[in-house]
Amino acid sequence: MSLDHDPAQTPGNDTLGQKIDAANQTALERMTSARPVLKSVAIARDVIPALQERRLLHAGPPIDWPRMSGPMRGAVIGAAIFEGWAKDAESAEAMAKSGEIDFAPCHHHQTVGPMAGVTSPSMAVYVVENETHGNLAYSNLNEGYGKVLRYGAYSSEVLDRLRWMNQTMAPLVRKALESSGGLDVRTLLAEALHMGDEGHNRNKAGSLLMLKALAPGLTASGAEPADISETLAFIGDTALSVLNPVMAACKAMADVAHGIEHCTLVSTMARNGTDFGIRISGLGDRWFTAPAATPDGLYFTGFSADDANPDIGDSTITETAGIGAFAMAAAPAIVSFVSGSPQDALHSTLEMYEITVGEHPHFTIPPLDFRGSPVGIDVRKVVELGITPRVNTGIAHREAGIGQVGAGLVRPPMEIFEQALTAFAELHDIG
Amino acid sequence: MSLDHDPAQTPGNDTLGQKIDAANQTALERMTSARPVLKSVAIARDVIPALQERRLLHAGPPIDWPRMSGPMRGAVIGAAIFEGWAKDAESAEAMAKSGEIDFAPCHHHQTVGPMAGVTSPSMAVYVVENETHGNLAYSNLNEGYGKVLRYGAYSSEVLDRLRWMNQTMAPLVRKALESSGGLDVRTLLAEALHMGDEGHNRNKAGSLLMLKALAPGLTASGAEPADISETLAFIGDTALSVLNPVMAACKAMADVAHGIEHCTLVSTMARNGTDFGIRISGLGDRWFTAPAATPDGLYFTGFSADDANPDIGDSTITETAGIGAFAMAAAPAIVSFVSGSPQDALHSTLEMYEITVGEHPHFTIPPLDFRGSPVGIDVRKVVELGITPRVNTGIAHREAGIGQVGAGLVRPPMEIFEQALTAFAELHDIG
Repeated sequence: MSLDHDPAQTPGNDTLGQKIDAANQTALERMTSARPVLKSVAIARDVIPALQERRLLHAGPPIDWPRMSGPMRGAVIGAAIFEGWAKDAESAEAMAKSGEIDFAPCHHHQTVGPMAGVTSPSMAVYVVENETHGNLAYSNLNEGYGKVLRYGAYSSEVLDRLRWMNQTMAPLVRKALESSGGLDVRTLLAEALHMGDEGHNRNKAGSLLMLKALAPGLTASGAEPADISETLAFIGDTALSVLNPVMAACKAMADVAHGIEHCTLVSTMARNGTDFGIRISGLGDRWFTAPAATPDGLYFTGFSADDANPDIGDSTITETAGIGAFAMAAAPAIVSFVSGSPQDALHSTLEMYEITVGEHPHFTIPPLDFRGSPVGIDVRKVVELGITPRVNTGIAHREAGIGQVGAGLVRPPMEIFEQALTAFAELHDIG
Repeated sequence: MSLDHDPAQTPGNDTLGQKIDAANQTALERMTSARPVLKSVAIARDVIPALQERRLLHAGPPIDWPRMSGPMRGAVIGAAIFEGWAKDAESAEAMAKSGEIDFAPCHHHQTVGPMAGVTSPSMAVYVVENETHGNLAYSNLNEGYGKVLRYGAYSSEVLDRLRWMNQTMAPLVRKALESSGGLDVRTLLAEALHMGDEGHNRNKAGSLLMLKALAPGLTASGAEPADISETLAFIGDTALSVLNPVMAACKAMADVAHGIEHCTLVSTMARNGTDFGIRISGLGDRWFTAPAATPDGLYFTGFSADDANPDIGDSTITETAGIGAFAMAAAPAIVSFVSGSPQDALHSTLEMYEITVGEHPHFTIPPLDFRGSPVGIDVRKVVELGITPRVNTGIAHREAGIGQVGAGLVRPPMEIFEQALTAFAELHDIG
């Protein structure tokens, strides 16, 4: 095995093995020393140049309308109406089908979005800056529960909420963030992992920590008390409020580990509802994709696995950065939402140490004696051990316009890691 | 053993053993079915008749000035100045010494207070109602960290904060509570135990849940934005904000388990900084006391065990009601504050199952597969097994005027349980 991470076992190729190990350590150090700070809220087109055109960003690897799943199509329809490009679902669908709307992955534009991840030019986005390395990342605002765009719903209730978020909530949150100098998301996550969150599907504590950070500044903003009150209630009542800034923070951390020569770490994992895709730090911007699996999980009353869309969303950026299912041992209570037992939650984290190259110096797990969470997925280890990364996720209805039907557990297809390892071997002339 | 809880082993006295078991089950059912709701904030004298005189309530069993410890004396001095009874520490001390101030335990007046627990007529108090059984309980407001009255500090900084709490914070919190119909503390605690709190020394999540519940109503109260902002910051920045309403909630739960004939459950555990005292449900209002131990724990920089006062405070009402050290398995991160390892935290809860008669139906512990927390301390089991209840606690400096020096773990003296069991045997003519 010429790519083996133990030089002692690879007498003929020590040099490449050592280069890989060194590159992986560099990437790990960069990812774990990144300090993402939530700085502001902006309108997407003002900070993401790609959105100065009639384009929508979406979750996962590249995809065009014909191959998009139901929830992704639903979110595209909703965004086209929200933007005023289309007056109804029919005309929105016609535009999308005819190529009048351009599509690009969020990940190509320093952006991530949960579930469909559809981000349109007028939408408010969180602005996260990695203060260690200076790079920026963006994510849209969390819409709460029920009928929401990210799960493919696009009724007037969904669009009205998006408008309220843009017009009322976003300017207030921006004021509160700018008056406080920003919110250190790494510190928030470190604290939340000690409060039973894993940072992906369970963000109860983190969302309350965000509420705590924003509340005094919101109140002192001089805005209408009714608007402030409504905003505080919305943030407080949504236990996923902080998911979106956390995802942007993870993107800011993962991005600085990308593009390092000889590095075999996974720098992107994302799903568009049709395909699961990964990118490898040392393999540039090439995606390795295969059909996404359908999560195993618990369904809301009235729904079953028959309703489930395959895995969707950029939220796997959390697992990429060492939280989510990788830190599930910190969040035993999550099993009542995603299925399994507290022991399974412990095992989720323990298994992920097998395929990672480090332990996070900032994200520690109390039930594991404050051991750092497993971070830095090594594609070599995934293939060698036959262990794919674990992912906690929400489950969308497979049809456009419906919404969330449950939450559960999923893994990416092994073949994308095999493809990536083969590509790495080819790049380095190993046959 | 004629008091034995296993009738099979007590052929000659089945009747009493069965009566005890039945009484204990009644007490347990009452304690665990109580639903304490934080309803309002009031001025102590308006809701606690005993405070219509020149009297101070204090933590723990009865005690007079000569036997009071340093932190208790410091809190008395501060309260006397706060009330305007004395102009400085010297005159306050003279008044207390001369008998011009009456003292009574909080516990005698449906009240509990952390550490010194000193509650004076003008102070704002939380009003908790047990909606299942209709009884009320009170607790003062948490002062946050640093120099605080409850740890025996009484500088102008301490008194100014108390005045701000009374004049600004209390009316706002009352408005928010009354506009929302109250805050269900049992539900809050159940959620907080799934978020890494144990409800006594670690109330990070619970305090944020309280912030979340109060923030929208506070903001819509029509008060000055600066006052609202300051109140939100104060509640959010104090990770013990909810401790006081939680204690009042536990008092409301424990009180309905008190006064049941033949019941051997502990219905009160409290310390005044000199003595540790307990009361037993079936033994009326009699206290069983012995010198309080000094906690083992971690000290703040510059302090050591030499500075520590013996155990103090009514906050052991949390352990009495089945949380705190009894639910420590839910709070592995607490060990960085009180000492020990996450494994010790698990063992704390597991050991407490040995001396309790039930598992709480509402307070469940995720790392123990959602097992209910141990609740209902049976004095028979404590004596028979030689296992005293565990307590998590703050540590006060032994001198008046200084404040908190650390946090740690402590147990009540075994002899008070032996005294109580002897008294129970005497009452029932068993010798």
